[in-house]
Amino acid sequence: MNAFTPPDQAFDLPTIESTLDAALQSRLQHKIDHKTKPLGALGALEKLALQLGLIQRTDSPTLHAPQMVVFAADHGIAAEGVSAYPQAVTVQMVGNMLAGGAAINVFARQHGFQLQVVDAGVAADLPAHPQLQARKIAHGSANICQGPAMSRAQAQAALTAGMQVVQALPGNVVAFGEMGIANTSPAALLLARLGGASIEDATGRGTGLDDAQLLHKQGVLKRALAFHPASEPLDPIGELAALGGFEIAMMAGAMLQAASERRVVLVDGFIAGAAALVAQALVPAVRDYLVFCHRSAETGHRLLLAQLQAQPLLDLNLRLGEGTGALLAWPLVQSAANFLHEMASFESAGVSAR
Amino acid sequence: MNAFTPPDQAFDLPTIESTLDAALQSRLQHKIDHKTKPLGALGALEKLALQLGLIQRTDSPTLHAPQMVVFAADHGIAAEGVSAYPQAVTVQMVGNMLAGGAAINVFARQHGFQLQVVDAGVAADLPAHPQLQARKIAHGSANICQGPAMSRAQAQAALTAGMQVVQALPGNVVAFGEMGIANTSPAALLLARLGGASIEDATGRGTGLDDAQLLHKQGVLKRALAFHPASEPLDPIGELAALGGFEIAMMAGAMLQAASERRVVLVDGFIAGAAALVAQALVPAVRDYLVFCHRSAETGHRLLLAQLQAQPLLDLNLRLGEGTGALLAWPLVQSAANFLHEMASFESAGVSAR
Repeated sequence: MNAFTPPDQAFDLPTIESTLDAALQSRLQHKIDHKTKPLGALGALEKLALQLGLIQRTDSPTLHAPQMVVFAADHGIAAEGVSAYPQAVTVQMVGNMLAGGAAINVFARQHGFQLQVVDAGVAADLPAHPQLQARKIAHGSANICQGPAMSRAQAQAALTAGMQVVQALPGNVVAFGEMGIANTSPAALLLARLGGASIEDATGRGTGLDDAQLLHKQGVLKRALAFHPASEPLDPIGELAALGGFEIAMMAGAMLQAASERRVVLVDGFIAGAAALVAQALVPAVRDYLVFCHRSAETGHRLLLAQLQAQPLLDLNLRLGEGTGALLAWPLVQSAANFLHEMASFESAGVSAR
Repeated sequence: MNAFTPPDQAFDLPTIESTLDAALQSRLQHKIDHKTKPLGALGALEKLALQLGLIQRTDSPTLHAPQMVVFAADHGIAAEGVSAYPQAVTVQMVGNMLAGGAAINVFARQHGFQLQVVDAGVAADLPAHPQLQARKIAHGSANICQGPAMSRAQAQAALTAGMQVVQALPGNVVAFGEMGIANTSPAALLLARLGGASIEDATGRGTGLDDAQLLHKQGVLKRALAFHPASEPLDPIGELAALGGFEIAMMAGAMLQAASERRVVLVDGFIAGAAALVAQALVPAVRDYLVFCHRSAETGHRLLLAQLQAQPLLDLNLRLGEGTGALLAWPLVQSAANFLHEMASFESAGVSAR
């Protein structure tokens, strides 16, 4: 782990408690181990049940009113030709989401999530809509190859907006997703800077680059990284301002706030993972509240998850973003809580132990 | 693939059509590719949507009245000390399922599956219960180390009973699970014989053997396999009778019947996979209807899935059986159908293509 400078004195980040509680952990483990199944036979669901219990400080965690928030923004680096799709697709896809036609809408309906879209920095003016929160920091970030993506004040404003979005949400589970043409580029840069990955390892095909386009993208990102030398020690807000994007910054703030309120946080794919990396650099205890939902097909995601010591629930070669991987994993989170509540114990069922 | 002898002339297996339909496949692929997402971005869900459409002969597959059937049986080979649990646990766990306290009950309730338990050959007399089907072939199979697990007539009776169970079920989706102390042993033997695996590769820790117990189990299974030389060419019903178990045989029959009725078949873990191997050896076209739901932590399952050329949906280190992995994967199957139905196309949403 790198050393990080503390954030600005004047800028307050949420206080996050560690979920560590040895007595509760041992009570939860005992409860899990005495369910009518071989020891450990529910695999990853058992670890998840433990995490849910520790987050909620109970051996009977319950999940209610799950919320899906999609943060949308544009990226100046799109001008360098790093995406297979034109920048206009960001605002078009926001429209698609507000009309209910995107993949995230389908899965939110399937699983009973309320869905909100947050305009974190789309490069177009968006008409008002009941499901749209207007929190635009700017009409897209600046081109990282020519200067910082945003000012330090903008990064702090985006983090703060993300916190405010979560403060207004009901329920005890939040899932975060994103939409933003070219946003695998800032995510790769943040992984390279905060996670120590090489640009080659951090850079993937995004929405579908061919070999030549991928090489071009790597060249652009190397140039961008070289343009912004690392501070020593690393300053996460400074790196976020230099290399990030508005939806990533806002999502990082949202994760911190959700953790400070002891909510369960469903983390989607590569972009959401980059936001988690930023959030962890700012307040390490946030990690306890994050449920990593899937491993994306995007090249850098494997490394990013390793950096976060995360074992994701799904590995389905998804690379869609929006929060789709988070919602696809949601029934497993419910199953983890359900088995803890509803399964009989060896004793109550009269089943012989080993 | 090994060559197999055809089954007995007198014994009728269901006729299963291949789902191959090039025109429909291309129509489905076109529909998938024009949804508002990057090409291929829903990964494994896209392949699954294609499979569902081909099974149902439509580009708008729908899923209704999903059924869960748990086949339970005992195994004479348990006397060789191949399981961490006593044989009595089979009947105790059947009781737990009928009382609603097992993991499979929890997940069936969560996902709206009707659950039935079939007594395929439990070594105890079971009291009647509305959710229990009495189809006992015998009070447990015979000890494979000393003779065939069952007679050829019993194997055929079990296959037939499995077919009959499915014939009586509503809906167009069936999930199959099992309960049977020691049943990783016949599953490993069938994998070794029908899939060509070594006993070392096919044999796992089941419900939780330690190193010494695992070595003992491998020794027992080597002895059992040597006791029953392979027929040349391989005769799947003969191998099933020699090395199988009643729940495995019944499940194989159930899979064949379900496929012949063009139902979607959710396949659970290692034991269900062994039943799929038997079913495929009997009628290869069954493979088109099988959705492989998870990769179990049981050692031989990886090899078994490779043998069936299956990419399972989940990989959660589960090793519980009962059908739990099938039900945990079910929401993903629904998601595959849902995105095909509900997502907007680039054209309908006014989103720019690449």
